[in-house]
Amino acid sequence: MRAVTIVDGDLRYLEHPDPVPGDTELVVAVHGAGINNADLMQRQGFYPAPAGSPPDIPGMELAGEVVATGRDTTRFSIGDRVMAVVGGGAQAELALVDESAAMAVPSHLSWPEAGGFPEAFSTAYDALFTQCGLSLGERVLVTGAAGGVGSAGVQLAAATGARCVASVRHAQLRDAVATLGAVSADPDEALGLGPFDVVLELVGAASISGVLGAMAVTGRIAVIGVGGGARAEIDLLAVMQRRLRISGSTLRARTRVEKAVVAGAVEHHVVPLLEARRVRVLLEATFPMDRAGEAYERFGQGGKLGKIVLVPPRP
Amino acid sequence: MRAVTIVDGDLRYLEHPDPVPGDTELVVAVHGAGINNADLMQRQGFYPAPAGSPPDIPGMELAGEVVATGRDTTRFSIGDRVMAVVGGGAQAELALVDESAAMAVPSHLSWPEAGGFPEAFSTAYDALFTQCGLSLGERVLVTGAAGGVGSAGVQLAAATGARCVASVRHAQLRDAVATLGAVSADPDEALGLGPFDVVLELVGAASISGVLGAMAVTGRIAVIGVGGGARAEIDLLAVMQRRLRISGSTLRARTRVEKAVVAGAVEHHVVPLLEARRVRVLLEATFPMDRAGEAYERFGQGGKLGKIVLVPPRP
Repeated sequence: MRAVTIVDGDLRYLEHPDPVPGDTELVVAVHGAGINNADLMQRQGFYPAPAGSPPDIPGMELAGEVVATGRDTTRFSIGDRVMAVVGGGAQAELALVDESAAMAVPSHLSWPEAGGFPEAFSTAYDALFTQCGLSLGERVLVTGAAGGVGSAGVQLAAATGARCVASVRHAQLRDAVATLGAVSADPDEALGLGPFDVVLELVGAASISGVLGAMAVTGRIAVIGVGGGARAEIDLLAVMQRRLRISGSTLRARTRVEKAVVAGAVEHHVVPLLEARRVRVLLEATFPMDRAGEAYERFGQGGKLGKIVLVPPRP
Repeated sequence: MRAVTIVDGDLRYLEHPDPVPGDTELVVAVHGAGINNADLMQRQGFYPAPAGSPPDIPGMELAGEVVATGRDTTRFSIGDRVMAVVGGGAQAELALVDESAAMAVPSHLSWPEAGGFPEAFSTAYDALFTQCGLSLGERVLVTGAAGGVGSAGVQLAAATGARCVASVRHAQLRDAVATLGAVSADPDEALGLGPFDVVLELVGAASISGVLGAMAVTGRIAVIGVGGGARAEIDLLAVMQRRLRISGSTLRARTRVEKAVVAGAVEHHVVPLLEARRVRVLLEATFPMDRAGEAYERFGQGGKLGKIVLVPPRP
């Protein structure tokens, strides 16, 4: 099989041995594989793949067709359409997916949409609901709301009956984000629309100090992105006086069982909304896998509305 | 009645009108009232008393005898020994306590011990258990472990079957803290004894950056004190990669109902340990109320083992 391959910081599209499934694994012919910030960091050498994932093939999410199954698989069969978060190796013709992490792809979804769903919606769901306990009627701020995780977070917040403010740096994207169910505003203006019970912080150090001043008492902040810097100055007295909680997370570093728990929650709580077309996967662009370098470059430029997804190269 | 009174940043012992109980309040003749950092901050003008508390009489915890009861009180009667966290006004001959915040004083406890129990143990219980979900077998670090909240936290952590490291700056206090059920160490050495699942952070900015590097995956940090500075530099990437949670809290700013919930939890989970002498209130010193200035000065010096408690002036 061929795969996007990191060679000395460059992206190439090279031949690799076909993957062999373990007892609980599926072999999936990839038809869509979303790009995430972790891929760019891995390319730069900052974020090595976890044990058990190919060290040189990036890609943390995929959708595709099952083409082979391990001995102990029970839920999916050859020919099924599946999507999943994986530890790495998704940006390839063939990828291994532990069956416990796989979700069925709703029938109306295109391959690029399905390939851009798992990481963004799992991350947003885990941050808003599992970490922050978001619920009905609460006030939410999503910073960096136009991207993949941000647009997922806005939709999930709106769907759960929260009141959502979307902080969007690029003025030309604000109207589109507002249609997802949020009041969409410039980052400074957005802070003035608080106080907020829950914040999905996708920007990092450049944003969080201001966010602290816009929190309601007992507010919760989930830090999921640090594109705006990682070293933040935090006023601990404000954290104490407003009784705040700041959490951070990544999906990638979790164990197989932890990932299965997240996938189960997303399958139970989010996939039904996707099937009912109450949430959707926003696509900024697709690129063929043999042009992954261009796709990563576009990803790194910012100003995106939704996901950038790699698809198989044109024959 | 007379009360410790803040006059232009000075502490005096002055006459005030006797307090009149509301429907759900008790009037308590105070026999012990612990000093807390909030009192020193209030004296300096940084931490005004919440609405409903006397603006010029400090004191957030007390123990004493019920001498009058409001119309709708049901749990306590005149002559009962009670202790409570209050919004302010505890350092006085008479203080008002909402009945929902009052706890019965175990019979073996002295008045100074009872007067130093509520704030320290409620704060430590709330931080370790309600905020951080501490449980059996986990590894805990308490920074600033020799003080009132710290010594309470060490004892509660040990009592719940956690393995506790106590970070103690003053070498001469380490042996005494170790007898509470912890490995007691210099702050730098203590960090080397991690990784920690839960940290009770009582020092603040000077401590928390180092603590972040000593956390286990899915660790929780509760920030309860900022004597070592409030503006902390936090590495958000470390927070994400280790999936940490940082929370802060104060008891004082909570509503009457929230305080009742904390008091109920402490009554249910901690007072039985106090009755069984499995935890104890450490007393550094007592001072008569008309010498509150000296007591605050001693509190501010640090190097304390446990609480400093004001008692009624000598007749």
